[in-house]
Amino acid sequence: MRKIIIGVMGPGDKAKATDMENAYEIGKFIAQQGWVLLTGGRNVGVMNAASQGAKSENGLTIGILPGDNNTNGVSEAVDIAIVTDMGNARNSINVLSSDIVIACGMGAGTASEITLALKANKKVILLNDDEESNFFFKNLSPLNVYVVNSLVQALKTAREVLVLATNVD
Amino acid sequence: MRKIIIGVMGPGDKAKATDMENAYEIGKFIAQQGWVLLTGGRNVGVMNAASQGAKSENGLTIGILPGDNNTNGVSEAVDIAIVTDMGNARNSINVLSSDIVIACGMGAGTASEITLALKANKKVILLNDDEESNFFFKNLSPLNVYVVNSLVQALKTAREVLVLATNVD
Amino acid sequence: MRKIIIGVMGPGDKAKATDMENAYEIGKFIAQQGWVLLTGGRNVGVMNAASQGAKSENGLTIGILPGDNNTNGVSEAVDIAIVTDMGNARNSINVLSSDIVIACGMGAGTASEITLALKANKKVILLNDDEESNFFFKNLSPLNVYVVNSLVQALKTAREVLVLATNVD
Amino acid sequence: MRKIIIGVMGPGDKAKATDMENAYEIGKFIAQQGWVLLTGGRNVGVMNAASQGAKSENGLTIGILPGDNNTNGVSEAVDIAIVTDMGNARNSINVLSSDIVIACGMGAGTASEITLALKANKKVILLNDDEESNFFFKNLSPLNVYVVNSLVQALKTAREVLVLATNVD
Repeated sequence: MRKIIIGVMGPGDKAKATDMENAYEIGKFIAQQGWVLLTGGRNVGVMNAASQGAKSENGLTIGILPGDNNTNGVSEAVDIAIVTDMGNARNSINVLSSDIVIACGMGAGTASEITLALKANKKVILLNDDEESNFFFKNLSPLNVYVVNSLVQALKTAREVLVLATNVD
Repeated sequence: MRKIIIGVMGPGDKAKATDMENAYEIGKFIAQQGWVLLTGGRNVGVMNAASQGAKSENGLTIGILPGDNNTNGVSEAVDIAIVTDMGNARNSINVLSSDIVIACGMGAGTASEITLALKANKKVILLNDDEESNFFFKNLSPLNVYVVNSLVQALKTAREVLVLATNVD
Repeated sequence: MRKIIIGVMGPGDKAKATDMENAYEIGKFIAQQGWVLLTGGRNVGVMNAASQGAKSENGLTIGILPGDNNTNGVSEAVDIAIVTDMGNARNSINVLSSDIVIACGMGAGTASEITLALKANKKVILLNDDEESNFFFKNLSPLNVYVVNSLVQALKTAREVLVLATNVD
Repeated sequence: MRKIIIGVMGPGDKAKATDMENAYEIGKFIAQQGWVLLTGGRNVGVMNAASQGAKSENGLTIGILPGDNNTNGVSEAVDIAIVTDMGNARNSINVLSSDIVIACGMGAGTASEITLALKANKKVILLNDDEESNFFFKNLSPLNVYVVNSLVQALKTAREVLVLATNVD
């Protein structure tokens, strides 16, 4: 049986503390459900925090790396390092490989992952206190974007949306 | 001497008439300056219109194609077809190969190109009457986003920004 | 701790029966060692056989898919489907993500994986009864190519080469 | 009308003098026919020599670059720099974008381009004095590989094969 993969995306070097705290809890939750966590794999920001959260519950973590090797700048909480050597073009692989995408926080890279996900008709949950960006994405794809206001709501929505995503796909 | 390449991005199948009219004129202008036009290469929407505009002035047009061949669904106004077979991951190549990026209109694919451009520290001109999206991108990268309100302003800004981009890079 | 990943490459639709039998046994062996199996993920040929062998021993299997979804044409023995939508350009990811590469059989796609691996300075074990191709690859990269003549020798060599590969990298 | 693109592939840093001399002449010939030259774009070896040859006849030259910018390590004889930031995965784009591929000399990277071309059913001309490698590729794809022994024969074959390639495709 194919494993369920949840992508958690968010800023790297410029992540805010609340985004990383949320990412850590989301990673924990994903592991508790028996799902696999997929991130961009670097040892900074939301990617790193989500991977650490998943490992705290013995979850399985995948990192889709932008560089050409599995060591430099890679989160120690990544079990399986997929080495693309494709820079930010790997953002497309991140979202295509995820059954649903959860974005914590905002930045140019995160926004590229959200929009590539929407282009590929994936469902995306946004946990982000910036109303303008939430409005922009909701308007861009009303049916596939889910704006949530709290960690609790994010986890509840993840479960509901995953049912839709895996039925639809 | 390396040729100057201007990327023009925008919706495909769902492009609005004004976006295509603007794209056609921008393509013409690019050719008149002796610059090379780069688009996503498909025979629809903004990509197609910009390429047709450039060809109306005997400009050189490049299309970075998502598919695996240079015929199906390719704009007849593309001179040089770069065949990636990479789907939307080719959006990263579109913007990395452009000295500056001009976006006409909005959609998930266009937004992914704008954000990938900003992530790569490229300068982006937005010609789009949707204030929310303009605000979102300007906020995301205040120094690299130029919001313009008319075709005339777009062309004037393109010339100014190109000087900055080619000096900086 | 990062998991050890062994890539098993070989023909798809045109695989020979002996290549698939060898791939099945190699997949079993990889799982028995606690290593992760990585293949091109399709439900044909060497990729499919290796994945089935690994699953017969409850191993973990990754498939790096050329297409744009995780269902059509994907081996049922793949646990984790990485969806690239990059066609054969994904062959580069296959080998960069593998600590060592084992090739069973020969074809244009397999040869591209071997040569991309050698270009990236990866160690490659060839289990293939075609002397001309063995000679060609050995000559191309004498230090990184290991030609073996039997399944037993392939498994023994895999263990030895992995020590070299993970020390060097 | 879509321009005809001829890909010339060969070693970079380790190219032999005769391979570069041949590449220069092939580049000249391509430009004389009014075709576009496509290479891997770096300022070394066969890529550089072919591009210089084409520019000596005022041809148009495209470089598909592995890095993330259009300046570092790029041949000065490249007119149009396509920036992929994809490392050797860009080899797939090189061959998919070429109507036919001509390989001068041999190495792991060149062999990956030849095999990716054959996997994509492209016609490949080999100008290389190494009989073992010629035999290997000819055996891998008897109908699509053309082994030539001299520059004169390479140019004659290029014209003939191009007719087949553009009729077939």
